[in-house]
Amino acid sequence: MSEVFDLAVDLIRRRSVTPEDGGCLQEISARLARLGFRIEHLRYGDVDNLWATRGANNAPGEGPLLVFLGHTDVVPSGPEDAWQSPPFEPTVRDGRLYGRGAADMKSGVAAMAVALERFVTRHPDHPGRVGLLLTSDEEGPTNLDGVRRVAAYLREVGERIDWCVVGEPSSKQKLGDLIRVGRRGSLSGSLKVRGVQGHVAYPDKALNPIHAFAPALAELAGERWDEGNADFPPTSFQVSNLNAGTGASNVIPGVLTALINFRYSTASTAENLRRRSEAILARHGLDYTLEWSLSGEPFLCPSGGRLRDTVVSVCRELCATEPEQSTGGGTSDGRFIAPMGAEVVELGPVNATIHKVDECIDLAELERLPDLYQAICERMLLRPLC
Amino acid sequence: MSEVFDLAVDLIRRRSVTPEDGGCLQEISARLARLGFRIEHLRYGDVDNLWATRGANNAPGEGPLLVFLGHTDVVPSGPEDAWQSPPFEPTVRDGRLYGRGAADMKSGVAAMAVALERFVTRHPDHPGRVGLLLTSDEEGPTNLDGVRRVAAYLREVGERIDWCVVGEPSSKQKLGDLIRVGRRGSLSGSLKVRGVQGHVAYPDKALNPIHAFAPALAELAGERWDEGNADFPPTSFQVSNLNAGTGASNVIPGVLTALINFRYSTASTAENLRRRSEAILARHGLDYTLEWSLSGEPFLCPSGGRLRDTVVSVCRELCATEPEQSTGGGTSDGRFIAPMGAEVVELGPVNATIHKVDECIDLAELERLPDLYQAICERMLLRPLC
Repeated sequence: MSEVFDLAVDLIRRRSVTPEDGGCLQEISARLARLGFRIEHLRYGDVDNLWATRGANNAPGEGPLLVFLGHTDVVPSGPEDAWQSPPFEPTVRDGRLYGRGAADMKSGVAAMAVALERFVTRHPDHPGRVGLLLTSDEEGPTNLDGVRRVAAYLREVGERIDWCVVGEPSSKQKLGDLIRVGRRGSLSGSLKVRGVQGHVAYPDKALNPIHAFAPALAELAGERWDEGNADFPPTSFQVSNLNAGTGASNVIPGVLTALINFRYSTASTAENLRRRSEAILARHGLDYTLEWSLSGEPFLCPSGGRLRDTVVSVCRELCATEPEQSTGGGTSDGRFIAPMGAEVVELGPVNATIHKVDECIDLAELERLPDLYQAICERMLLRPLC
Repeated sequence: MSEVFDLAVDLIRRRSVTPEDGGCLQEISARLARLGFRIEHLRYGDVDNLWATRGANNAPGEGPLLVFLGHTDVVPSGPEDAWQSPPFEPTVRDGRLYGRGAADMKSGVAAMAVALERFVTRHPDHPGRVGLLLTSDEEGPTNLDGVRRVAAYLREVGERIDWCVVGEPSSKQKLGDLIRVGRRGSLSGSLKVRGVQGHVAYPDKALNPIHAFAPALAELAGERWDEGNADFPPTSFQVSNLNAGTGASNVIPGVLTALINFRYSTASTAENLRRRSEAILARHGLDYTLEWSLSGEPFLCPSGGRLRDTVVSVCRELCATEPEQSTGGGTSDGRFIAPMGAEVVELGPVNATIHKVDECIDLAELERLPDLYQAICERMLLRPLC
């Protein structure tokens, strides 16, 4: 059919459930190496990562550098017989390509690779540098050995990324109708409230941590943490897990545990949220421990920034959309690149079927995707920087 | 050594962990049958119960009837090698008899049987009736087939119990220093609060039942249900178990479950507590179900009642104590007898070692126990009823 179709089919056929890669990265690096990209395979733990760059002066820190970011790993298929066609046998039906990863995000990976191939073929002496960063650890539970570690490595070697386009499926109903211009931060806490275990019939000899925690919980759940701002909705707080009790109905438990999570805007800081929640716990006189983990700080590609404006205009011109510029949704690997000082924007296929059975991408949109990425390359690197 | 010692040793040697009886009831019924007791073995499910009565006119409903109540089942020993001597090999050491059930409550059972034997031997033509009610299902989780069902049977046949002495280990430090003159009621509820499951990053598409329940929980935990009264402490409310969450930290749970329990005084009724707690839940707009179970209504042997006054004076005279007259602690099988219209008082050995390893009873107190029960028989049945 086409380069991008053939490559997407090739990638989908490879069973690359996290952290497996199934040879995806090798396939892509071989193609890029032939076009003069410098290839680094960065293996951390069970995870393969690919860092490929090209430019006349292709050394860390030389710029400007435009990077495409994605992942070749996919979530499990679920029961294969629930699929109309096998999840790892890419199949065309009714104008769509079906298979696990068709939308999230092997089509995006194929399109980014093809766009880079076309760009460097057409502009072999392009100014600045282009790069492709791929991991096989985006869909797993921890993401410890993927882009997080690559970013740490890149900092070490003095690399600097100016612009980063993430090919995650950002679109809602039609390619280019929504781009992500930032993401909220995610701050988690593991809370343990201690009481004194005892018999239900002797409450004066016990201290029920459920009762002790209740007013603090009500206050935490009712708190308005910030009002958000022009780019972000207000910070949200959720208790995802709450457990206390021995199972026996006549025993007052000795301990309560909870997992909490903030999705926070740039109107708050992690430090501020930590301090305010601990102040609530302390005010209620609780005997507690609270272990925090920050899985991503919020980031925003500012309005008026070159990358954001470029992506918007590319969507307008090539997709005939007026893209919604959103900071919603979960986290993405962009959170590891943004703190390096990069402008980060996410643009990719329609996400309606991601993680579901019968995941698919519209064939016309698949063909259009490399055009978008190629246009971004050309506008970011070939036009005067002013 | 003595009749009560020999019988206690015989009973402790029988491994009668609930609902096993190990032949305890057969042993006791054979002894009482020889002295003219009418014996009924009431078997319900896996549980043996013994109902033995004696009197000149020994028919249901004839009175006055004084009943001793107890159980022959014991809790498990726990790891046997943690005991200084094997739990089912009764052993004398340092003036104490050791073994599982030595305090709870095979010594009490032995003493009640021996007291009845002595009483009917000394007063073969005693007025009124005496009875012994024993079960092998007091320590188990449900108590469905023990005294609960015996009481239902006794109501059916038109039986009426005037006074009931429960030989449970009531004493704190010294035999007779505390008697139970009533017990609080126990009302339990199984609560389910429904929300809408979702992703932590999209709280507006979910409804977190933890957050929804939090203010109601704080209100329930902070509520003062009643002030108690002269005989009872205030009603207490406890949440014994509270669970919500899938384990995953990025999922807002769809449901929260809780087990709640009231230990309530005669200043409240179960109906009133149910209504008030449901009103709190409804006021907070929760989508919930709440299944109630009433495991025992409160009861009180009134001050000035003959049995209570008699037991107090027996303690004063035979134990040289001024017994604390308490309604504290958990429930007991007395809760099934009190609603029949009986005055119920609990008097038994020191409870310091019950359910523990190295459970024991002081030998001097073991010898004294039948005297107390015999004196209660004589004072209740031989003195004019005035």
